[in-house]
Amino acid sequence: MFTDLPEADLWRHRSGQTEPDDFDAFWQETLAEARSCGGEVVVEPVRTGLSTVDTFDVTFPGFGGEPVRAWLRLPRTATGPLPVVVHYVGYGGGRGHVLENLLWASAGYAHLQMDTRGQGSGWSRGATPDSGPAGPQAPGVMTRGIDSPHAYYYRRLFTDAVRAVDAARRLDRVAPGRVAVVGQSQGGGVALAVAALVPDVAALVAHVPFLCDFPRAVTVTDSLPFREIADYLAIHRDQEDRVMRTLSYVDGVNFARRAAAPARFSAALMDAVVPPSTVFAAYHAYAGPKAIAVWRYNGHEAGGPDDDQGALDFLTERLGPA
Amino acid sequence: MFTDLPEADLWRHRSGQTEPDDFDAFWQETLAEARSCGGEVVVEPVRTGLSTVDTFDVTFPGFGGEPVRAWLRLPRTATGPLPVVVHYVGYGGGRGHVLENLLWASAGYAHLQMDTRGQGSGWSRGATPDSGPAGPQAPGVMTRGIDSPHAYYYRRLFTDAVRAVDAARRLDRVAPGRVAVVGQSQGGGVALAVAALVPDVAALVAHVPFLCDFPRAVTVTDSLPFREIADYLAIHRDQEDRVMRTLSYVDGVNFARRAAAPARFSAALMDAVVPPSTVFAAYHAYAGPKAIAVWRYNGHEAGGPDDDQGALDFLTERLGPA
Amino acid sequence: MFTDLPEADLWRHRSGQTEPDDFDAFWQETLAEARSCGGEVVVEPVRTGLSTVDTFDVTFPGFGGEPVRAWLRLPRTATGPLPVVVHYVGYGGGRGHVLENLLWASAGYAHLQMDTRGQGSGWSRGATPDSGPAGPQAPGVMTRGIDSPHAYYYRRLFTDAVRAVDAARRLDRVAPGRVAVVGQSQGGGVALAVAALVPDVAALVAHVPFLCDFPRAVTVTDSLPFREIADYLAIHRDQEDRVMRTLSYVDGVNFARRAAAPARFSAALMDAVVPPSTVFAAYHAYAGPKAIAVWRYNGHEAGGPDDDQGALDFLTERLGPA
Amino acid sequence: MFTDLPEADLWRHRSGQTEPDDFDAFWQETLAEARSCGGEVVVEPVRTGLSTVDTFDVTFPGFGGEPVRAWLRLPRTATGPLPVVVHYVGYGGGRGHVLENLLWASAGYAHLQMDTRGQGSGWSRGATPDSGPAGPQAPGVMTRGIDSPHAYYYRRLFTDAVRAVDAARRLDRVAPGRVAVVGQSQGGGVALAVAALVPDVAALVAHVPFLCDFPRAVTVTDSLPFREIADYLAIHRDQEDRVMRTLSYVDGVNFARRAAAPARFSAALMDAVVPPSTVFAAYHAYAGPKAIAVWRYNGHEAGGPDDDQGALDFLTERLGPA
Amino acid sequence: MFTDLPEADLWRHRSGQTEPDDFDAFWQETLAEARSCGGEVVVEPVRTGLSTVDTFDVTFPGFGGEPVRAWLRLPRTATGPLPVVVHYVGYGGGRGHVLENLLWASAGYAHLQMDTRGQGSGWSRGATPDSGPAGPQAPGVMTRGIDSPHAYYYRRLFTDAVRAVDAARRLDRVAPGRVAVVGQSQGGGVALAVAALVPDVAALVAHVPFLCDFPRAVTVTDSLPFREIADYLAIHRDQEDRVMRTLSYVDGVNFARRAAAPARFSAALMDAVVPPSTVFAAYHAYAGPKAIAVWRYNGHEAGGPDDDQGALDFLTERLGPA
Amino acid sequence: MFTDLPEADLWRHRSGQTEPDDFDAFWQETLAEARSCGGEVVVEPVRTGLSTVDTFDVTFPGFGGEPVRAWLRLPRTATGPLPVVVHYVGYGGGRGHVLENLLWASAGYAHLQMDTRGQGSGWSRGATPDSGPAGPQAPGVMTRGIDSPHAYYYRRLFTDAVRAVDAARRLDRVAPGRVAVVGQSQGGGVALAVAALVPDVAALVAHVPFLCDFPRAVTVTDSLPFREIADYLAIHRDQEDRVMRTLSYVDGVNFARRAAAPARFSAALMDAVVPPSTVFAAYHAYAGPKAIAVWRYNGHEAGGPDDDQGALDFLTERLGPA
Repeated sequence: MFTDLPEADLWRHRSGQTEPDDFDAFWQETLAEARSCGGEVVVEPVRTGLSTVDTFDVTFPGFGGEPVRAWLRLPRTATGPLPVVVHYVGYGGGRGHVLENLLWASAGYAHLQMDTRGQGSGWSRGATPDSGPAGPQAPGVMTRGIDSPHAYYYRRLFTDAVRAVDAARRLDRVAPGRVAVVGQSQGGGVALAVAALVPDVAALVAHVPFLCDFPRAVTVTDSLPFREIADYLAIHRDQEDRVMRTLSYVDGVNFARRAAAPARFSAALMDAVVPPSTVFAAYHAYAGPKAIAVWRYNGHEAGGPDDDQGALDFLTERLGPA
Repeated sequence: MFTDLPEADLWRHRSGQTEPDDFDAFWQETLAEARSCGGEVVVEPVRTGLSTVDTFDVTFPGFGGEPVRAWLRLPRTATGPLPVVVHYVGYGGGRGHVLENLLWASAGYAHLQMDTRGQGSGWSRGATPDSGPAGPQAPGVMTRGIDSPHAYYYRRLFTDAVRAVDAARRLDRVAPGRVAVVGQSQGGGVALAVAALVPDVAALVAHVPFLCDFPRAVTVTDSLPFREIADYLAIHRDQEDRVMRTLSYVDGVNFARRAAAPARFSAALMDAVVPPSTVFAAYHAYAGPKAIAVWRYNGHEAGGPDDDQGALDFLTERLGPA
Repeated sequence: MFTDLPEADLWRHRSGQTEPDDFDAFWQETLAEARSCGGEVVVEPVRTGLSTVDTFDVTFPGFGGEPVRAWLRLPRTATGPLPVVVHYVGYGGGRGHVLENLLWASAGYAHLQMDTRGQGSGWSRGATPDSGPAGPQAPGVMTRGIDSPHAYYYRRLFTDAVRAVDAARRLDRVAPGRVAVVGQSQGGGVALAVAALVPDVAALVAHVPFLCDFPRAVTVTDSLPFREIADYLAIHRDQEDRVMRTLSYVDGVNFARRAAAPARFSAALMDAVVPPSTVFAAYHAYAGPKAIAVWRYNGHEAGGPDDDQGALDFLTERLGPA
Repeated sequence: MFTDLPEADLWRHRSGQTEPDDFDAFWQETLAEARSCGGEVVVEPVRTGLSTVDTFDVTFPGFGGEPVRAWLRLPRTATGPLPVVVHYVGYGGGRGHVLENLLWASAGYAHLQMDTRGQGSGWSRGATPDSGPAGPQAPGVMTRGIDSPHAYYYRRLFTDAVRAVDAARRLDRVAPGRVAVVGQSQGGGVALAVAALVPDVAALVAHVPFLCDFPRAVTVTDSLPFREIADYLAIHRDQEDRVMRTLSYVDGVNFARRAAAPARFSAALMDAVVPPSTVFAAYHAYAGPKAIAVWRYNGHEAGGPDDDQGALDFLTERLGPA
Repeated sequence: MFTDLPEADLWRHRSGQTEPDDFDAFWQETLAEARSCGGEVVVEPVRTGLSTVDTFDVTFPGFGGEPVRAWLRLPRTATGPLPVVVHYVGYGGGRGHVLENLLWASAGYAHLQMDTRGQGSGWSRGATPDSGPAGPQAPGVMTRGIDSPHAYYYRRLFTDAVRAVDAARRLDRVAPGRVAVVGQSQGGGVALAVAALVPDVAALVAHVPFLCDFPRAVTVTDSLPFREIADYLAIHRDQEDRVMRTLSYVDGVNFARRAAAPARFSAALMDAVVPPSTVFAAYHAYAGPKAIAVWRYNGHEAGGPDDDQGALDFLTERLGPA
Repeated sequence: MFTDLPEADLWRHRSGQTEPDDFDAFWQETLAEARSCGGEVVVEPVRTGLSTVDTFDVTFPGFGGEPVRAWLRLPRTATGPLPVVVHYVGYGGGRGHVLENLLWASAGYAHLQMDTRGQGSGWSRGATPDSGPAGPQAPGVMTRGIDSPHAYYYRRLFTDAVRAVDAARRLDRVAPGRVAVVGQSQGGGVALAVAALVPDVAALVAHVPFLCDFPRAVTVTDSLPFREIADYLAIHRDQEDRVMRTLSYVDGVNFARRAAAPARFSAALMDAVVPPSTVFAAYHAYAGPKAIAVWRYNGHEAGGPDDDQGALDFLTERLGPA
């Protein structure tokens, strides 16, 4: 069943999320600070048993210059600079196993799949710790450091994600001008933030992006991980303003207003995890060229391989033949 | 938590499943009849946007000569006859989307992924109907035609699966002597049957194989799809003997006793869908060289990509470099 | 809690379901074809141990002339031609056990309880197989053959149901002009279709009828069996138009517009299986004289024995004393 | 899945339940006291619309002479004294609607269906209040008055049930020497008690009888209503001895040891509500001639209509043709 | 997620509950009758091991003069007449263990915690039976005696609660003019009734009060205990008018219109047990000075200790320093 | 229902947990390092509105000298050095609200309730962050830093807990020789560790202690938080040995073998969160004088206020009158 507003209302819905005055300054300083830490991009080949794809274990400097892991997959026989897909993953997962996620390299792209700090133990494995303070919080990362924008987990994760683009552009065989940022769910929310924070990415794919329109989201779904916010506020009853202020710095709606790259969104009308109104909130706010695939009968899996196919067609058109 | 016997008992457990006198005759006749129907293997190229893998839409004659669909994926740049992985899928699914399941072709194998008749609407899509009678039955296919071995659904599916091997051997670029049958869950149960019915397959991979040790299975799990059997018998209370007789013709334990190919099994000790004792029942009965990966902390997902890695290593060793 | 629109809105709600141009032709041809197959009605007495009711095992020609089973129950001591209740059952069930469903015969009616092809293993037993193709489908019958109106399961079932009326009229001791069609849930949906397809039935009882207003139903409930449609479309994402077209041929709303017999409906405001708006959609569309019992505090069981009492009173008034 | 001991162990299992020294005196006094209250059996005809069954609203004196309701159903055309089925119902229900439960009258028996004091609002309606004290108790009746055998709810209910037999024997058209007591679940437990307390009943049918082997039952199931006992003791932690003593006065195992009438039991191996070991505990203790139907694949519905058929055959044999 | 109307609508929502003409007379007579029964307040000291709080086991005459239990806790070192908190507890619980609920005495109040007749076995223990008739009812007390206002359970409980205030005023060391009535959930509903029935109580604390706006409540939540009403009506389908009439005599909305004491309410927007619209219904109807704490992210636990803190501040202000 | 071994087997059950060779050295070094960090104990009075209890906000140096918060509650009128209860709380909670947990101070003890680093957002609030690395982990703290004993979360928490005893002994009005460590669930596990690590504590209360017998626990329950371990290993499939090694450093069984203080345990036979066999494993291993309360009908709430009463009696006996 539909989990949110009727479809016609979704097309009309606009988020009430506001943005803090220093939103841009906050992120400018955050990124400047991270970039000032320097650090090397280390690329180690990995034996996988695959014959069409070359795989590398990448370590690049993320937030605070801390080492962040990623897989780089390259089509073995391709020559010349490749367009690159920088790929972020969903909540709870990490960069996964080296044999997973062969799509983008098989389609001819350089594929940099970033690990997710402190996650990577839920449905796919990770290898990157989170360094931040873990002050009184609900299980998960949604409320880690939530009492201040500076301490908040997603400040660190989004910075890693921007730095992943920086790293991708320094890789051999990658065409630095042909970078797409891609993700689903949390990965889509991260990609959306990067599209705003790195003005010259060439394309954005944000499938059922999480992390958008928090003030509404926490009141319309009981599902984790949005629910972590409500669980926290159920105990820390006097922290609503503070928490909502912190969230306004990472809300996809606020990033959407600043992005310019052509974008492909998707939303699913039976999605209880990322209610479609929160996706439409970001979609409507998105400042660049955009399209959205609406899956009427899907839950959070959304378009699945059909979204992959759509993303592949979209990137081929935007980044040129892979 | 562990869902079945303590681990030490699993290593000692032997199935009480018996086999009907005419088990071999039944299958010999079934396969002879299917093969006598003839029919062409049709191979149509498919545009996918992938650059390292060539994909083909295959139609081959299955049970009763009926057209069964499959995807054939070939590593584009490989030359010479390729070892082939004939791949069967889990309950409810079909051959899926053309962009899914890139592992085997990326590893250098010809990969023939068979569709599952009448399923293919649960978690991955299919395109092959089932022709059989659907007499009073519980939802799903477990009790379709269960009042007789001849009418039973799995007689048709296993026959398709054998004919998929026949078809694979006729494909261009495939080395007919280097065929592995591979699957997980229902796919593992199907592969196990094929390993018995096609004496010269080179290797079997049966991860958490379903369809083994029915008499025990239906009493130790409440989970679908084994539960379909109990649901049926809860209504057709006088049919226990007849149903158990039918099941004895498709029980993986009985196939295991007849197989000779080197085999890799896996079992998961927290699996409520395919209780590990039913997997060990087949494993202990298996007549060929064998090994089993035991995942202590996994449910039905079992080893996931780690099982893939294990299978890849195992096939490389058995079928020669891909 | 109420599962659907507020009660006042239910009285105003009208379905948006449309009908295909060839709706009438489709059914005219379907029935003509079935009737042209001929076939005998076979009536065999059954020993039950009952002393007030005579019971017969009936086999009559249904869709494609295929044999369909039914129970015929007659009040033993009644004389003269009897009014007849042709009775259809709910989803998953069959004609049941011979000792069940004694109401109508005890009330003086001839009672012909039709089996449901291919079901009859869920909560009551059946004995009639379905002959149709079972191409990639979700478990259950809701999506069996759903890619075309001609192949769809409910085309066959509704044809059986019409032929059950034909058969009832040929029975000894039955007054052919005094036929009521009766059912609850799926049985109510079937009866509603028959009331449209057999213009001269004398009365319709459709309690919480299933199979009405599909386009709305699949978006407002998560419960099986409506959910089978959404499950199917969640995988076959490109099939929405085709599926909705097929469903328009069997939607109770479209049958309701064509029926003329006096009708008793019921709806339950806490029903999550058959949302009351879908019942009201059919009720409002119903072209004949009509009344509806609204059960405010019931789920899908609706009026239960109170609905039975209401139906008994209604039929007594419409068909004359039994 | 099996919910209790393996089947072979069920056949060996014996209850550890003990009986209080004054068990017989307790019941003798209880019944004497109730019978000493006198009171009339009032029989009022009811209009139902049925033509084969005559129905009467019966009020008879139960515990403390309090009025207890029942339905009496008689086959209309039968002549001569009839064997009578005194029928008790399951937990939460009452005597139900007048149109329900037509089996026994249709089979030629006088059918006296007793209401259940204070219940009758769960799945079938009742009309008889309970007079007893409702001191601190868990929802339901399992712990009503549980701090003393004299105040306990089931003392009153079992007394009603004995008095129902007394009343049945006084009815016109009933053969007082041909009384069967019949019930399922709670109704089976009640019938079992009556078979012990009324030495000359002619037959007992106790399908999946509830209320047996309490000390074990409360430790092997989480399901209501046995769970009410554990819920109560979870709060009244110091009352275990007192509660277990009270329960020993109503435990079916203790009644079974005293009964002499031929009996038909049933048990279901997938029953989580009444674990089969508690049924076997009573069955093994039963002192009269006995048989038990074991349903391997059923939950608490057990044999359903097949149990009805079995009971009908059994009573025909024991009570003579109805 | 929010379980009820949007917050802005809650502020506008008014209950449609009506009141019977004889509402005031009904309660006047009920209380007069109870008070006319006389009876002593018995106060027995209890050894607890506490050194700052003195505890007494109190028995006072309630409805019909029946003995009702309570705990009285007094701050040991306090001198002079104390303000008193008469405290009622939530559904299913009783006065609890003597070591629980130390807040009010520790804050310097006399604390009289009333037991709840017939409950006290769900989450905290009680010791007071209910004497009333328990005619066909759903498990729990919500439908006990519901077929008449005079027989209804809550008539008895509210009378006990009024008599608890009467008793409190007679206690040594208590200042009879400084009585607050306090409770959460059912306890809040009881306190609200007392605030209307005892005109001179000095303050009311009703946190997430249960028992308000029944006609709406039963249609907007599936949770127990409101659901007991719907469960009852699902079986007793013809009793809606009678049940709703009975409930109108105990509905908090009708009491609210009559109360004058300053009041502190609370409501929780994610509360599925007591939907916030039913609390706001009472709040808006409340005739005295009032304030309401709204907890946006809490379920039925509402403000928990923050509500306690609020209540403590509120009572300090209203009753003078404790 | 019982969730674990039969009761008789629990009395015989011994854990198979082993201990690492450097267990004692590990903890000796850990504590020495923490103590070497120095740091002040800061005690700030808090206004609460209570009149019998004085409350203080305490900050003391914990692991790494990091500031850890606690509440100190003192009976206002007590004089002379007080015995002190150092109190640890359950999983997910923190030191809570200042108005909660008044028992120990009301009973005359100094009560130091330690906050739980990084938790305190689940069911009671906290104010102390965790400083440790949060590398790829499952939600919660069970797997935070689990790849090494030195990085593991519980190393830090247990150190805080030991330092809380150190801090308590430095408080005004506290008798340093009369320290009890007390807790339930996680709090019980922490207290058990402290009883081993601080040889001269005077008494231990460990109610349903969590964190014992990990190798067994993770295989016999599906409930959080033990399940976090299995969830982690389900993804990090190759980490079993490493994880089990880390856990052996914090397992309550290994601490129990080293403790000497008189101890009161409790276990609950229907506890699915902390299976009773894991409690008995610690109990049987406990080297000091000991007793255990066994609650047959309780889940994880165990004895609740009855356990409190038992603990109060036990401490009065062991620490002298409070």
